[in-house]
Amino acid sequence: MSEASLLQQLIESLRCLPGVGPKSATRMAFHILEHDRDGGRRLAGVLEQAVARIGHCSQCRTLTEHETCRLCANPQRDAGQLCVVENPTDVMALEQATGYSGLYFVLGGRLSPLDGVGPRELGMEQLRECLAGGTVKELILATTTTVEGEATAHYVAELAGGYAMQVTRIAHGVPLGGELEYVDSGTLAHAFAGRQRLIGDER
Amino acid sequence: MSEASLLQQLIESLRCLPGVGPKSATRMAFHILEHDRDGGRRLAGVLEQAVARIGHCSQCRTLTEHETCRLCANPQRDAGQLCVVENPTDVMALEQATGYSGLYFVLGGRLSPLDGVGPRELGMEQLRECLAGGTVKELILATTTTVEGEATAHYVAELAGGYAMQVTRIAHGVPLGGELEYVDSGTLAHAFAGRQRLIGDER
Repeated sequence: MSEASLLQQLIESLRCLPGVGPKSATRMAFHILEHDRDGGRRLAGVLEQAVARIGHCSQCRTLTEHETCRLCANPQRDAGQLCVVENPTDVMALEQATGYSGLYFVLGGRLSPLDGVGPRELGMEQLRECLAGGTVKELILATTTTVEGEATAHYVAELAGGYAMQVTRIAHGVPLGGELEYVDSGTLAHAFAGRQRLIGDER
Repeated sequence: MSEASLLQQLIESLRCLPGVGPKSATRMAFHILEHDRDGGRRLAGVLEQAVARIGHCSQCRTLTEHETCRLCANPQRDAGQLCVVENPTDVMALEQATGYSGLYFVLGGRLSPLDGVGPRELGMEQLRECLAGGTVKELILATTTTVEGEATAHYVAELAGGYAMQVTRIAHGVPLGGELEYVDSGTLAHAFAGRQRLIGDER
């Protein structure tokens, strides 16, 4: 115990980080102790604060240290659009990539009854109340295209069916710049079946 | 500022870890906050303790939270052998791989005058005092085979020249199981030049 313990504890603790095995953890521990104690001290402080203070937004359920997140608290955002995503990282990705100016709702996962994740765990009741409020004109479903993601999107669409609003789903297909021969067959089949009219009458 | 700040600070702080860029840091931050707050809390505590309390062993200069490290404090270790290495990680590697039962001396780097690393930074004066003590019978040089590592080994060997002791260098050559065709030419030339007699008279 005694001697190696604190260093060993540090190496062990670093392994809570995703993708960090024994070798990386050892390298990280020695790097901090030998070259970047200031960084280590700062990380320890911020991490402690973050774990203690960051919770979920009372409106959209994303991660925030406040009662409501920056997006929900911003009166400039269009409350008429609500985008349903699985995780807080999805919010970040959409904010960086798109010019979307509406609000979000973070489920925190996808329906997966076998893993014990049902409508209650995903805050569906809260989402229903939000939709019942009547301000949402367009509900955008941005869950993943996995089986569970599609099931979740379907569940949310049914939930929205009872209220007067447009429900849309983000487009799935061949990625920009993707060569057809390298795109997986599922995506290609999906893109082909979902082809869109360019010229000619509707219907 | 306000909202994203603590999360952004966490992502920024995680980047002090070696090999962690913006994407990994984001993934780590969300993983801790969403799936492993206990691990994050423990890491924060241990990291703070480690940075504050882990220092260098007064005898061998390796990392330890005590005045002298576990190896130096162990009377079972043979004080007649002293192995000179560059970093605390080297001590760990040798301890795991070999049955060596002597002591170590950690330089904390290698001679590199252009980077401002001279004999003083590597604790050569402390090493000289240790060698002058007279208990060391064999000095084992285990610095790396880089130009600076060789220069450092040479410097230490000269230092030891003034005292009655054997000075050895760990063997360098083809790694175990290494196919000759895939070994780099420098290593192969070194291994060939340093070939050892199996049968026949010495000289």
